[in-house]
Amino acid sequence: MELLKNKILEEGRVLGKDVLKVDSFLNHQIDVELFNEIGKEFKKRFQNKEVTKILTIEASGIGIACITAQYFNVPVVFAKKHEATNMDKDNYEAEIFSFTKNKSYTIKVSKKYILPEDKVLIIDDFLANANAASALISVVEQAKAEVVGVGIVIEKGFQNGRKVIEDKNIKLESLAILESMEDGKVIFKKLT
Amino acid sequence: MELLKNKILEEGRVLGKDVLKVDSFLNHQIDVELFNEIGKEFKKRFQNKEVTKILTIEASGIGIACITAQYFNVPVVFAKKHEATNMDKDNYEAEIFSFTKNKSYTIKVSKKYILPEDKVLIIDDFLANANAASALISVVEQAKAEVVGVGIVIEKGFQNGRKVIEDKNIKLESLAILESMEDGKVIFKKLT
Repeated sequence: MELLKNKILEEGRVLGKDVLKVDSFLNHQIDVELFNEIGKEFKKRFQNKEVTKILTIEASGIGIACITAQYFNVPVVFAKKHEATNMDKDNYEAEIFSFTKNKSYTIKVSKKYILPEDKVLIIDDFLANANAASALISVVEQAKAEVVGVGIVIEKGFQNGRKVIEDKNIKLESLAILESMEDGKVIFKKLT
Repeated sequence: MELLKNKILEEGRVLGKDVLKVDSFLNHQIDVELFNEIGKEFKKRFQNKEVTKILTIEASGIGIACITAQYFNVPVVFAKKHEATNMDKDNYEAEIFSFTKNKSYTIKVSKKYILPEDKVLIIDDFLANANAASALISVVEQAKAEVVGVGIVIEKGFQNGRKVIEDKNIKLESLAILESMEDGKVIFKKLT
């Protein structure tokens, strides 16, 4: 997606070998106009799929999921990462190991909001090793619902997230795929 | 706002004396169609105000803020509640005391994303004692920007949040104001 790739080149900042900071438009300040183009692109890429619900994870996934949901006319459900007061007791749970924080945490989704008949599109901002995506897939599987695909804004193509998801025979669409970020320079994979 | 009040009456669940659970459409599962009506209503209520940015707080504020921002054609900034890797060091910070958790936490907003020339509309899902709203107002004040108003989806009219905000001479618009939740029954203030 050219618009997104140009935005990454203009405003993204590479930290170290594998961190891309995009907080000016994606995960702290939010460029809602760009999100609308992202939403349209996800609709185009999953146009042959029946989708009844979009599942994401707090916090940065929520904005992308909500704007995208307008093009599918479906509700969004977001998995909770943090202990929430008033959370139901009856939840699907899955563990995520965070490499950056070097610890595991548990995500929760109320059993009321993913039903066996749901056809779920998973949306998230980043894909690296697919730890978050795998946990969201696990939630959908526990609910005996169907994952119709995973839509990612920025994929770190030099990590193994794509393999993890495609090995489960799930369609993965990433709007920008990073081939490398060496010497502070972002190189995209040609196909994206 | 009638549509919202009807939704609260149909799907809201009262827990104890002061907790209203609305996780089927507001803060776990998200009814994006309703959020669009909420966004339009905020635009109507703040139509005479110049707004350059919408400020909210993770996680439940993000979806409402993003959908609402489409009607104002402005970006969203969300304050971070949780330690985020890669967060800038140069932030505005404010303390929030959480009664439900009986402890304080610090919210952070990068100094890059609220500028002195900004006219900021603060959006959040709930207003009770205005702890979160006061912290967001403090962030805008630290940035020497202007708060043009506070827009709330559900106000607990029996707590003192409205007084706190109006004492600062800030316009507050709440789309549904709860007068009481006694005996598990939601009563709205007449005017809303």
